[in-house]
Amino acid sequence: MFFTSDLTPLLKPRTIAVIGASGNESKWGYKVFHNIISNRYKGKAYPVNPSADEILGNKCYRSIGDVPDEIDLAVIIVPAPVALKVVDECGEKGVKTLCVITAGFSEVGPEGAKLEKILKEKVKGYGMRMLGPNTMGFVNRSIGLNASIVPRMPYRGEISFISQSGALGLALADWALGSQLGLNCIISTGNKADISEADLLEFFEEDADTWTIAMYIEGLKDGRKFMNSALKVKKPMLAIKSGVSQAGARAAASHTGSLAGSDSVYDAAFRQSGVIRVEGVEGMFDAAMALSTQPRPKGNRVAILSNGGGAAIMASDACERRGMKVPPLNKYTSAGIARLLPAFASVKNPVDTVAMSDYELYRESLKILINDDDIDCVMVIYAHGGFTDAMEPANAVVDALKEKYPKPLVACWMGGEDIESVARMFRKNRVPYYPVPERAAESLRCLIDYNNFLTARSKNDAG
Amino acid sequence: MFFTSDLTPLLKPRTIAVIGASGNESKWGYKVFHNIISNRYKGKAYPVNPSADEILGNKCYRSIGDVPDEIDLAVIIVPAPVALKVVDECGEKGVKTLCVITAGFSEVGPEGAKLEKILKEKVKGYGMRMLGPNTMGFVNRSIGLNASIVPRMPYRGEISFISQSGALGLALADWALGSQLGLNCIISTGNKADISEADLLEFFEEDADTWTIAMYIEGLKDGRKFMNSALKVKKPMLAIKSGVSQAGARAAASHTGSLAGSDSVYDAAFRQSGVIRVEGVEGMFDAAMALSTQPRPKGNRVAILSNGGGAAIMASDACERRGMKVPPLNKYTSAGIARLLPAFASVKNPVDTVAMSDYELYRESLKILINDDDIDCVMVIYAHGGFTDAMEPANAVVDALKEKYPKPLVACWMGGEDIESVARMFRKNRVPYYPVPERAAESLRCLIDYNNFLTARSKNDAG
Repeated sequence: MFFTSDLTPLLKPRTIAVIGASGNESKWGYKVFHNIISNRYKGKAYPVNPSADEILGNKCYRSIGDVPDEIDLAVIIVPAPVALKVVDECGEKGVKTLCVITAGFSEVGPEGAKLEKILKEKVKGYGMRMLGPNTMGFVNRSIGLNASIVPRMPYRGEISFISQSGALGLALADWALGSQLGLNCIISTGNKADISEADLLEFFEEDADTWTIAMYIEGLKDGRKFMNSALKVKKPMLAIKSGVSQAGARAAASHTGSLAGSDSVYDAAFRQSGVIRVEGVEGMFDAAMALSTQPRPKGNRVAILSNGGGAAIMASDACERRGMKVPPLNKYTSAGIARLLPAFASVKNPVDTVAMSDYELYRESLKILINDDDIDCVMVIYAHGGFTDAMEPANAVVDALKEKYPKPLVACWMGGEDIESVARMFRKNRVPYYPVPERAAESLRCLIDYNNFLTARSKNDAG
Repeated sequence: MFFTSDLTPLLKPRTIAVIGASGNESKWGYKVFHNIISNRYKGKAYPVNPSADEILGNKCYRSIGDVPDEIDLAVIIVPAPVALKVVDECGEKGVKTLCVITAGFSEVGPEGAKLEKILKEKVKGYGMRMLGPNTMGFVNRSIGLNASIVPRMPYRGEISFISQSGALGLALADWALGSQLGLNCIISTGNKADISEADLLEFFEEDADTWTIAMYIEGLKDGRKFMNSALKVKKPMLAIKSGVSQAGARAAASHTGSLAGSDSVYDAAFRQSGVIRVEGVEGMFDAAMALSTQPRPKGNRVAILSNGGGAAIMASDACERRGMKVPPLNKYTSAGIARLLPAFASVKNPVDTVAMSDYELYRESLKILINDDDIDCVMVIYAHGGFTDAMEPANAVVDALKEKYPKPLVACWMGGEDIESVARMFRKNRVPYYPVPERAAESLRCLIDYNNFLTARSKNDAG
């Protein structure tokens, strides 16, 4: 087999046919083909449409059979009644994988479900793999491919996001762009007739460009298969499992036909397979930022450095509420930091710099805290009063991380417009940044939870 | 007595003397005097400094005794050793209130605490009232007064914020500005030698420009007095009580000399006096936005309207997790909304518009949901895919609220850059806006909690 994972021809195709490509800008067949050819994607893309000779400057083929090339991926955006015929043509052509954007299957009721069953059997019969139907497509930033209706490419990052909801995937792609959060893949799973989260997890485990996997799940069709895949993954995984509530389960049933299932069963399954469960998208990407950039903490002892007492106290509360420790500093560390501060400053933990936030002070304090063997992770806080340069202590954080200490660090910069450029700089330099201490603490908790899972697993493996 | 509250001469002074005003831009005495005279404040402000003839174009007086006017408020920014003498001069002059920005009192240790005791007795002896010492001053947006070191005035709003941490107050003022959240007062309480939260609550209860009171508290010196004042307040109150954790309590002791006290005691005191407790600043201002703009809900039944299934399901989960109900819609409401949607759309609760978000649809759906007697509050969601105009459904929300239905509504617009103008428009039109469903749900919970408190209180009053 040429491919290392059987989803490689889907997610890293060398050749793509877009069946149902269109020259009409209002159609999805236009948007998807346009997105594929107008980014950095280096493979070949062939439009297929019986009623066009040329689309966006590309020779158009009447059917997939006419395309003079081997096809790794056929993106299908034709009306539902002709989709099955198109799948047959793909099978006969030897197309390896399908991304079926066409809707009108199990999500619309029993008739659609019958159609989906036939679709699935056909795909299987030809030995193809299929994303969808009813998917909004996918983005793979690492190869510059946008085979979806996502209007703009996200910034490049190491987080890959699997979404059972297409619209949510779109909204989050837009949000990630606006907040400059980098992503690698965005995959809308649609109805999961063939490819499910389990398959994607195995792909991402092998994908060097994905470091952290974030999932939005309404229901799993095969929980055991999901767990088996998750257990093979050595990368951090985060999941929102929605449809927990009565109303949510009702809505999930009509949204993606998912049976939401027992929440406690999901909880246990996630815990056993090392998937960190989060409530919402803000928390998920907050944690993903820390998990994809920071090393494993050895324990749960946090040192807090802050230029303001109030923020430091809230951060201490937020850490202890989440089961972390904010222990008093040992005498060497205390003495080391005391040398940097005026006599009346507090050199306990949290360290309160009494409003000072110059580069040297933050740089040296961080060095001392990170080097303390009694400390496992560091939270750096800066509350912006408007008189000091918010970038100075931020640069100290970036430089501290450049030394590659094996300890995780999270940054909380509180303030308004002046903080925006710091946020951009932090994102660029892979510093997990949060606007309030609680979100920084929650992300540290996820890092620690994940570490605890890994430790327990390696003990099990050894024993 | 001319003033309705004895803090009126402090927070709404007709005349101000700034003792320690300076012409040197790097000094706080410059910043504060500059802030007072360079905004819309219509009262008179006199700089006092023995070593200047004129400051920022204003005739400077050698001592407070030389100022040829009655003085409502003296802002004191002199070195600690001369502060007591200045207070004597103020007392002899008949100054009504003081804002002592000067630091070096109880926050620096036992010596400072002694000095603070003398200061307090002097102030009391002269019949004055005092904010501070060790305060960063205050802002009262309704009279255009910035008697603080906050660099820029916040936008005008109905939320007043009391902060025991000056730096936190500064950072939040900056944040409010950046996120266009309107504020009325920002008050840094400093060491609370005289004026405490209890006094400020009574002032705000009478202050027509304050509709909601948000507090950051590290410790209360007199919990009973606080409760008594809080019980008199008929406006929503929110509080962060920090120093909950061991490390937090340790830091609070050195930050503002506060004894953090038993957390469960604070919890009970807040609950009994109708103060809604929140963990962090994000949740506090989220809730304050809803509380200061929305009517009281009659119960906890929420209707959810969304253009995307995933967001709707997460919103349902978030509401039920917080004890709210998302009940199925009654047949009249279902039928009314069904007329607006395609046949395959879900007209349960949550209502999923299957990607449609035009003005008319949102406008009419909201009208029907708000008019449903079986619904107490509404959450409107829009997930931005990039193809539709995010402002269209937002305008529908604003117009729905213009009809002044007596039901609360919260809005959740998910997306990136395109959402920013919607956020600004919502703030301007007093629509509580949130970027994710969980934060909208948490704010609804606060509205409902507050309503439950009011209902219980009125029953007690009646019985």
